[in-house]
Amino acid sequence: MNRIMEVVPNFSEGRNVEVVERIVNCFRNLDNVKLLDYSSDKDHNRTVVTVVGEPEALKAPILEAVKVAKETIDLRTHSGEHPRMGAMDVCPFIPIKNVTMEEAVALAKEVGEAIGAMDIPVFLYEKAASSPERENLAKVRKGQFEGMAEKMKEDAWHADFGPADHPHESFGCVAVGARMPLVAFNVNLNTPDIAIADFIAKRVRFIGGGLRFTKAMGVELKERHITQISMNMTDYTKTSLYQSLEMVRNEAKRFGVSVVGTEIIGLLPMDALIQSAEFYMGIENFSRDQILETRIMD
Amino acid sequence: MNRIMEVVPNFSEGRNVEVVERIVNCFRNLDNVKLLDYSSDKDHNRTVVTVVGEPEALKAPILEAVKVAKETIDLRTHSGEHPRMGAMDVCPFIPIKNVTMEEAVALAKEVGEAIGAMDIPVFLYEKAASSPERENLAKVRKGQFEGMAEKMKEDAWHADFGPADHPHESFGCVAVGARMPLVAFNVNLNTPDIAIADFIAKRVRFIGGGLRFTKAMGVELKERHITQISMNMTDYTKTSLYQSLEMVRNEAKRFGVSVVGTEIIGLLPMDALIQSAEFYMGIENFSRDQILETRIMD
Repeated sequence: MNRIMEVVPNFSEGRNVEVVERIVNCFRNLDNVKLLDYSSDKDHNRTVVTVVGEPEALKAPILEAVKVAKETIDLRTHSGEHPRMGAMDVCPFIPIKNVTMEEAVALAKEVGEAIGAMDIPVFLYEKAASSPERENLAKVRKGQFEGMAEKMKEDAWHADFGPADHPHESFGCVAVGARMPLVAFNVNLNTPDIAIADFIAKRVRFIGGGLRFTKAMGVELKERHITQISMNMTDYTKTSLYQSLEMVRNEAKRFGVSVVGTEIIGLLPMDALIQSAEFYMGIENFSRDQILETRIMD
Repeated sequence: MNRIMEVVPNFSEGRNVEVVERIVNCFRNLDNVKLLDYSSDKDHNRTVVTVVGEPEALKAPILEAVKVAKETIDLRTHSGEHPRMGAMDVCPFIPIKNVTMEEAVALAKEVGEAIGAMDIPVFLYEKAASSPERENLAKVRKGQFEGMAEKMKEDAWHADFGPADHPHESFGCVAVGARMPLVAFNVNLNTPDIAIADFIAKRVRFIGGGLRFTKAMGVELKERHITQISMNMTDYTKTSLYQSLEMVRNEAKRFGVSVVGTEIIGLLPMDALIQSAEFYMGIENFSRDQILETRIMD
């Protein structure tokens, strides 16, 4: 695969193994599509599927999975802790390699239109959003399945594709969008004082005046008697992990607190770490084409 | 490709483009084999080809390239600056991913035997060597093409495969072996004093009592008025790049000298840099399976 798009559809079924398997099977044994991971949560009653592939090759299996979800999941009888508004609840396209955000947006719109033709209302969100109010997924989903019939009557909340003013009776509706890969990056501090962690988190994060693509909050790790700056790096290509780490380290100094380690949760693109190797090692004129794996994947 | 072996055959032709293309074409358009790079040097009159592939899939194209080299290159009329003893001069197999050094050695022996059956003497070297004296390529090749007829008469220098006591009249003979990937890693120092660079190089390198898998020498970068520790990391899985870098940095301190940058020359496996990111960022419990590219390639 030379051009790689990731797609992470979330389905509102995490308990019925048979249904989960039918959905996941849509992404198996395909040319130029690779199922990377899937995990079901019984409390959330939700399954998250991670797939990569050539952009064009992802369309058919996503639509097939929507069809299966429509046949097998009924939101009228669904309960779970995680907010949801549809059988396939959310479907972000994420550019990984040799594809642009513009292509991810185009793919989200193309897939969204096709889902709309299946009589399911589609809201475009994040980079694919048709208006600023729809960028934030939480705002789009507010009211959840039970509230959407009422919400969609408002002009401001008509769907982008499919039935404009009412959800599908059993499926509900779906948010389809495009975003950068998220990297969950935590920095551990040798203090049990959550007030210090909170203070640092606020200095580092975008909304507090910190780094443009960093979300951060303080967390207590009670078993270890330490605290953590738990961060979401929302565009590692622009704000690097090492920038967040060094900013945390600097802010911690005034309290006499040190960084004792870091964690990366879940998947991340190779380049998010290569950037840091380049920075800390001071590598001059390094090209990604010098990495064997880059060449092998081309 | 799930299992990846690299092979870097060197051919004694760097001037005749037609011959070079015939050789390189042996590695094109194949299943589970990928030509990564090739470069010809006119002064050396030599072409280095870099190929990766599933181990089994590499055998046929290598043997095909030997056949082409046998038909097109005549060592009796070959001249060039680089030492050489055969039309395909040397052929190292290098384990990259999900393959062991033992498998690289086995593949070298299998390919060596098949080349021997083509009436070409084969010397196994490095990890595939049949005796300690044959581990070092320079020792095996000493005397070069012109000296091999005499050298091979000695019992100690009988070939491992093929005609034992005489080279092929036009092809000469070939060294086939197995080794770890080499990483060429240079550290630049803010001193023009080559004596300081030489001193540091000697402290850091294996033969001077330094790191097990580091070769190092001092080099002047005259245009930049600085010096460099030029290193060959002979097994980055055991001696990491950051270990060499930090040792250079420490040794430089006594002279009041600092590291001003580093360079990586040519290709290197992703993991050689990920190790350093892990070290400098202090990432706890990181698994290579968290890297998207690792999963995509599986």
